Amino acid sequence: MNTLNDRKTLVSQVAEAMGKRVYNDGAENHKETAPRLELQHESPKLVSLEDAIRRSGLRDGMTISFHHHFRGGDKVVNMVVAKLAEMGFKDLHLAASSLQDVHAPLIEHIRNGVITQISTSGLRGELAKEISHGLMAKPVIFRSHGARGAAIASGELHIDVAFLGASSADPLGNACGYSRSENAKSICGSLGYALPDARYADKVVVLTDDLVNYPNTPNSISEHDVDFVVEVDSVGDSSKIASGAIRDTKNPRDILLAKQAAKVIVNSGYFNDGFSIQTGSGGASLAAVKYIRQSMIDRNIQASFALGGITAHMVKMHEEGLIGRLIDVQSFDKVAAESLKNDPRHKEVAAYEYASKQEQGSATHYLDIVILSALEVDVHFNVNVLVGSDGIIRGAIGGHPDTAEDSALSIIVCPMLRGRIPCIVDEVTTLITPGRTVDVVVTEYGIAVNPNRPEIAERLREAGLHLVTLEELRDRALKIIGTPAPLPFGEKVVGVVLNRGGSVMDVIKDIKE
Amino acid sequence: MNTLNDRKTLVSQVAEAMGKRVYNDGAENHKETAPRLELQHESPKLVSLEDAIRRSGLRDGMTISFHHHFRGGDKVVNMVVAKLAEMGFKDLHLAASSLQDVHAPLIEHIRNGVITQISTSGLRGELAKEISHGLMAKPVIFRSHGARGAAIASGELHIDVAFLGASSADPLGNACGYSRSENAKSICGSLGYALPDARYADKVVVLTDDLVNYPNTPNSISEHDVDFVVEVDSVGDSSKIASGAIRDTKNPRDILLAKQAAKVIVNSGYFNDGFSIQTGSGGASLAAVKYIRQSMIDRNIQASFALGGITAHMVKMHEEGLIGRLIDVQSFDKVAAESLKNDPRHKEVAAYEYASKQEQGSATHYLDIVILSALEVDVHFNVNVLVGSDGIIRGAIGGHPDTAEDSALSIIVCPMLRGRIPCIVDEVTTLITPGRTVDVVVTEYGIAVNPNRPEIAERLREAGLHLVTLEELRDRALKIIGTPAPLPFGEKVVGVVLNRGGSVMDVIKDIKE
Repeated sequence: MNTLNDRKTLVSQVAEAMGKRVYNDGAENHKETAPRLELQHESPKLVSLEDAIRRSGLRDGMTISFHHHFRGGDKVVNMVVAKLAEMGFKDLHLAASSLQDVHAPLIEHIRNGVITQISTSGLRGELAKEISHGLMAKPVIFRSHGARGAAIASGELHIDVAFLGASSADPLGNACGYSRSENAKSICGSLGYALPDARYADKVVVLTDDLVNYPNTPNSISEHDVDFVVEVDSVGDSSKIASGAIRDTKNPRDILLAKQAAKVIVNSGYFNDGFSIQTGSGGASLAAVKYIRQSMIDRNIQASFALGGITAHMVKMHEEGLIGRLIDVQSFDKVAAESLKNDPRHKEVAAYEYASKQEQGSATHYLDIVILSALEVDVHFNVNVLVGSDGIIRGAIGGHPDTAEDSALSIIVCPMLRGRIPCIVDEVTTLITPGRTVDVVVTEYGIAVNPNRPEIAERLREAGLHLVTLEELRDRALKIIGTPAPLPFGEKVVGVVLNRGGSVMDVIKDIKE
Repeated sequence: MNTLNDRKTLVSQVAEAMGKRVYNDGAENHKETAPRLELQHESPKLVSLEDAIRRSGLRDGMTISFHHHFRGGDKVVNMVVAKLAEMGFKDLHLAASSLQDVHAPLIEHIRNGVITQISTSGLRGELAKEISHGLMAKPVIFRSHGARGAAIASGELHIDVAFLGASSADPLGNACGYSRSENAKSICGSLGYALPDARYADKVVVLTDDLVNYPNTPNSISEHDVDFVVEVDSVGDSSKIASGAIRDTKNPRDILLAKQAAKVIVNSGYFNDGFSIQTGSGGASLAAVKYIRQSMIDRNIQASFALGGITAHMVKMHEEGLIGRLIDVQSFDKVAAESLKNDPRHKEVAAYEYASKQEQGSATHYLDIVILSALEVDVHFNVNVLVGSDGIIRGAIGGHPDTAEDSALSIIVCPMLRGRIPCIVDEVTTLITPGRTVDVVVTEYGIAVNPNRPEIAERLREAGLHLVTLEELRDRALKIIGTPAPLPFGEKVVGVVLNRGGSVMDVIKDIKE
């Protein structure tokens, strides 16, 4: 029989016509026969941080990225940038989802030319102060969380190498912000802000302090997107997540504001079965959801979903059946992180699924009510959440302009005064969220409703709430503390605020000591 | 005060320097104030099938894709191609993850020039018969499931428009193969073979017969990847999933083979705590896992994961604690689909995460044991699962070569004879899985071990199993039924089998009536 030779000839002819190789049995790898548990830690992806950096192809001038799910407890940014400095890298663009107090060591790396550009949602602490005083030659680019996700997806913000801390990962790169192992050290819950980086960065390095056996499922980052896995001592201190801007407040003024916001929600016309809600960072806004719980029970109302930074309060209401689904781009505490791990109705979403302006399906577009904080609100309802009234950067855009614009009803909770600092002002120091997207401002001296929303004012008035104008609040603040001196801004642009549509919203100038 | 004008000037200057627009409040959209439940069905993604096709930009000559999670119950391929024919499209490349008996209507569309090229893992029924007889001018390209996922991810198989049936979807495109609504009609479980298409196709159309309110979470396809959502009467008949090649067998020979395969597993040296296992389609292979259960309990052995087509048997063993995780690229029955919906340790994976040769982390690389079926095995351990001994295409490559190559131990269950048809042969009709990747062949007349694996033969012999050579089995078959006449193949190439590495493995010639 000659069939074998005929067949080989035909296969060759077809392969040639298709521009493909002929399968060659001998050239194929030897079959690996070791039991797979023995191979766990022989994954070629499992390397040291230095090797991961070297093999990633990172070069001077490129863009590196990080997420901020550990917030003030993050250890990845400092660790990686110290290693990059040690390896002699220069002129890097650091594109983080946000930066915190803990990142003060970056000051040195900026001075030494390792980092020459920063993109972030926020800046706090010493780093923010130094940058406000003119530390960097190039201005920091500020984007909202939705804008960052969209910019990464569209390629406007191209990431060469992403360094993503994970609470657990297997040697192949399946990673997440929780862990099913007993060695779990650092739990952050959702990795929503890291998912755009994982999907779109050229190279992805996962760092973890809990390397578990394959398969680390369920996972949020897939091996498909991961090039290297680096085992480290610690990726973050979980105990520092629920602190700072997302602590559970005991402050009586915050509680007053939260209760007032709850009254606004309940009487707004949007408090109907199937509504959806988000609470932004800041004690009063996070607490507001607590004070609508009883009204939901009384009126037999269930929310279809709660969105955003997910908190223990929301998890509790979800488990009680008051909130149908949780959509989690960032877990604000350990209860939320545990819930995300165990509850299929608690869903992790990438930043672009959360709040991209360009995606019709991003969750913020289906949000009825959002409660947000502010550093300043001006008489045109414009909000500043980034730069202090002293001209120093001390906050983060977060999802503020995303949710204010997309929601049916945006409520800002903001005291009229913080100590001697007026928060209802004539003109915001920095424009973050345009007034046309802000519907209600709740202060301890009354509630102001945007003149664009007369129907809301009418409903609140009918409910007996005390309505004021922002001009009245501004004047009242001025009467108490007097007109503040103009801020001593210099001429250097230290920050540029991009609108979520990609245009330039405002600039931040350096402030003199 | 002149600060506002200064500020505007500076913002303009910075925007110009950055090549960006200045934010223009007036140009922005009006704030949408309707309660979001009212907007549910106003999603601009929600269109008719015809509009979805029109707006997708599909043109003659392009590539469209489909998944086969409804197997013999699929209704999407026929519905979409009928619409494309009606709209006058010609010369389309249909790239399905697999095709079944139910797709016989494609014959007409091929005759009419609507479909001129097919890529698939398998073909069955009338369509397969006609193609085997030379229906198409271009050969069908056959790829394994892993190879298809890898080819889509690498761009080798570029999909212009994917048409993906989903058991539920919201108007924004969040979709999955299960449903939490009471109107659920067609449940298929994992959408693993559709996920590469969803991620990499230029345009993605989700078809669903259970349009639910946003947010349809948890979801496997994200709104981020979906361009259009089309509501249809039915995407598939779930009752036909667990039939054909994946029915739960009652056939005594299948049960005998399954029990023998179980003995091979238990005595192979790989039956240790933490092992991993997959069972391919075919009654005997699917059933094998039933018969290792008691041995797992007796020896106190737990599997780390079960992979692949997930069955009710596996779900039961998982829920008993015998299998740690389920990794599901395709749910073989409703029990599996329900489990996927509710159990966080039951994980859906995309085809490339399942079995890509090119991904170090794909699950098959961490697979200890796989049990697979065969139409034919030849004396070199080569396996054919695609073309019948009559020369007619009647099967699917599936994950056969992927799992055989990547696993530590591949076991083929195959009768020596099927009626008058010999299954252990001198040379396979079509080469699908190379003999070097096949370790053990289990027949009703004894067990053959690949000479490359003497240690396995030794262990099985020690366990008292009856070992034979494939030559003995071939001769025995020949003695019973006599030497079959050579098949009347023609000269036309009707199919090309690609190896998972992308090379040409074999060709299929047309068969005369």
